[in-house]
Amino acid sequence: MVRIHPAVPKMTKDKKNKPSKELPLGFVDRQEKELLVRDFIISNIKEVMIKYGFQYLETPSFEYSDSIGKFLPDKDRPDEGVFSFKDDNKWLSLRYDLTAPLARYVAKNYLEIPKPFKRYQLGNVWRNEKPGPGRFREFLQFDADFVGTKNLQADAELCVMISEILEMSGLSKSEYVIKISSRKITDELFKKIKIEDVKQKLTTLRALDKIDRLGWDEVKKLLKEGRKDRSGDFTKGANLSLKNIEVIEKELKKKSPETEDLIEMLKIFKDYNFNNFEFDPTIIRGLEYYTGVIFEVNLKFDVKNSKGQVIQFGSIGGGGRYDDLVNNFGNYDAPATGISIGLDRLVYALMQKREFKIKQSKPVVICVFDKGLMREYINLQNILRTVGISAEIYPGDGKLKKQMEYANKIQSPAVILYGEDEIKSGKLTLKNLSSGDEKSIKIKELVNETKKII
Amino acid sequence: MVRIHPAVPKMTKDKKNKPSKELPLGFVDRQEKELLVRDFIISNIKEVMIKYGFQYLETPSFEYSDSIGKFLPDKDRPDEGVFSFKDDNKWLSLRYDLTAPLARYVAKNYLEIPKPFKRYQLGNVWRNEKPGPGRFREFLQFDADFVGTKNLQADAELCVMISEILEMSGLSKSEYVIKISSRKITDELFKKIKIEDVKQKLTTLRALDKIDRLGWDEVKKLLKEGRKDRSGDFTKGANLSLKNIEVIEKELKKKSPETEDLIEMLKIFKDYNFNNFEFDPTIIRGLEYYTGVIFEVNLKFDVKNSKGQVIQFGSIGGGGRYDDLVNNFGNYDAPATGISIGLDRLVYALMQKREFKIKQSKPVVICVFDKGLMREYINLQNILRTVGISAEIYPGDGKLKKQMEYANKIQSPAVILYGEDEIKSGKLTLKNLSSGDEKSIKIKELVNETKKII
Repeated sequence: MVRIHPAVPKMTKDKKNKPSKELPLGFVDRQEKELLVRDFIISNIKEVMIKYGFQYLETPSFEYSDSIGKFLPDKDRPDEGVFSFKDDNKWLSLRYDLTAPLARYVAKNYLEIPKPFKRYQLGNVWRNEKPGPGRFREFLQFDADFVGTKNLQADAELCVMISEILEMSGLSKSEYVIKISSRKITDELFKKIKIEDVKQKLTTLRALDKIDRLGWDEVKKLLKEGRKDRSGDFTKGANLSLKNIEVIEKELKKKSPETEDLIEMLKIFKDYNFNNFEFDPTIIRGLEYYTGVIFEVNLKFDVKNSKGQVIQFGSIGGGGRYDDLVNNFGNYDAPATGISIGLDRLVYALMQKREFKIKQSKPVVICVFDKGLMREYINLQNILRTVGISAEIYPGDGKLKKQMEYANKIQSPAVILYGEDEIKSGKLTLKNLSSGDEKSIKIKELVNETKKII
Repeated sequence: MVRIHPAVPKMTKDKKNKPSKELPLGFVDRQEKELLVRDFIISNIKEVMIKYGFQYLETPSFEYSDSIGKFLPDKDRPDEGVFSFKDDNKWLSLRYDLTAPLARYVAKNYLEIPKPFKRYQLGNVWRNEKPGPGRFREFLQFDADFVGTKNLQADAELCVMISEILEMSGLSKSEYVIKISSRKITDELFKKIKIEDVKQKLTTLRALDKIDRLGWDEVKKLLKEGRKDRSGDFTKGANLSLKNIEVIEKELKKKSPETEDLIEMLKIFKDYNFNNFEFDPTIIRGLEYYTGVIFEVNLKFDVKNSKGQVIQFGSIGGGGRYDDLVNNFGNYDAPATGISIGLDRLVYALMQKREFKIKQSKPVVICVFDKGLMREYINLQNILRTVGISAEIYPGDGKLKKQMEYANKIQSPAVILYGEDEIKSGKLTLKNLSSGDEKSIKIKELVNETKKII
């Protein structure tokens, strides 16, 4: 049975009605060079995940909207949200992260899964945000989580684990750092200064989250009445008193942690001999659902934008403890902790490191002089492919000049010339396209001579 | 700068309002066993793609709806279609295949790409069909295409190439076959019996597409007035005359091809010594955009459904020549041919082959007797992980009994017992969980002794 293709593009013959060749804002095509770097990182991730004993899982792109959460209005970014569809009377959404689907998975399979449950997932997530420069609406995430344990050993392992992945991928210890903090710090602060309103808490957290970008002076405006940014847009503040702002500033400028969870984490890090972290109480992480330790992975080398300017690159991901999330689905004993890494961002940064190179194999091109000789060309192609050398018979319809242009365009290392004359003499011509050198060789020499060039 | 998470799941404390733990119909969670088989196939694909000189490309999940085609009403499946969103006055759709986005990519980058352009892509596609048993709305496809060539060498290479991938993945020549035909056969038939109406053509093709599933007698009803299926649903027919139906049947029962393109293909197959194909004029492939040679990849071994019944599994994919598709975007010289494989279906079938095994590595579990000994446990864990052996310190909060239950649940090959007494004696206990044997060994023997077990 053939599955008939459901979608039949209608040919638009009218030139005025030509469809768009462009992509919607926030979406991009990705080329081989980038994809090979990504594959390299993913293979490192998989190797580390096996060593650390995480299970490989994949949840689908769509979930019932109510399974992955309802969305509070966010005045900072009014257009953000998720992509949702109405499906028979129920709403479906594309996942906006990999944590919410994990919580759903755990609730659905609670009786079957091991406890604790350690899983990792790689997958695209989507955000229906207002598109802007560098703001993607689709990106690839890597997540690893422990569900069903309050043991801080788990949180510590996540930090050690991501460090191992980054170092396997070519970063030195001086090129990244794991910043740690705890949601308990801000929770205690809110108690101390007696903020109970959820919205006010959120506005405060959002303001504090901007300390590294705007500095304390600007953030204080956001903690007070509000702040006008360079474009003139006004962001309403948290309306805290000066006294309370002082309390917050003092607390968030402390150099060493005082909460029980972080003191324990530091002890475990010591047992691991892990020291590529720093305590930073100003890291917030956006999600409201964090309940304890939080961490953030930061790159420390210069990253440039497409205009060659060094940019404030920020974190490539982070995570933390979310002990109550699975309880959205009922009464489960499922305290959890996890990490999310934005792989596209990591790839973007890694590709800027001068030393970082991934080899792309381009095919040797076998030129076609006469279609009647196809059997001979296929033989040469086979000889090369059998030993794993990338090779192709020129796949187009052009004459020799066009064939050479093609070979140069695809950055082929060499072409093989094998016409009537060569066949008679029993020799073929191998032309090195970077040096321009030509060599007349026997077929049995082909593999060795090609290896010298590629 | 931390990117604040846009989506804040609202905790539903009210038990009556618990969100669904289920997945929407047509979507599934995929487990490690399946994902490892998929990874194995994907690594074979990538190896073959490099050898054959295809470029690796990734287009995004979303495209402008008009870029990937408009959709004709299809009375057979009224709910089918694509997932679309309105985005500032323009419609976006999730791709329903990887061919339409390729055509858009070629049009957008026409001046920069080599001609011919050979690219491959791996990615999910989505169909907003009426969900039903075994009907998925998200699935993973592998596509390889040649754009910018009329050379039938390209079409032949696609068939040879997919055969190499299938054989690398463990299939023997008797377990699959490539069926070939040409859209020219039905085009000539339509001319001969003077059908010009697009809808009537489509209804006829759709009827013919069911020959392998329903047989000629039932299909003839669909070529006439219509047919009532077992559920009582009536499908309107193509209203052809008995004489015309006879002409069609005679043509589609021919045993060898007569169209110029297929005669040329057979010649190239001969040059390749490729003979794992058969001519089958009843294969149709759903897409209206095919213009020449079409092919279909069929598995020939028994595949069972979840109830253990052997099912008519059908093809895992196919493709063909589509010389006009890029012209939807304007006047481009971009004749093309390509192949699409449904990887989830291939994985499903491969996993049923008895000989087919992919090893899953499960971690050795280091039991925790005393948190004060964490440094010693981390040392053991390190010793194993450094040589690539999967290992973990028990990540939960339970006592020894719970720890052993956990190790058994995750199918760990062995546990390490290392308490106060063992540390004093300088020896640890390694317990093989499948045999139950315990062995007292020195730390320096750990790697070798563990390797004997895993």
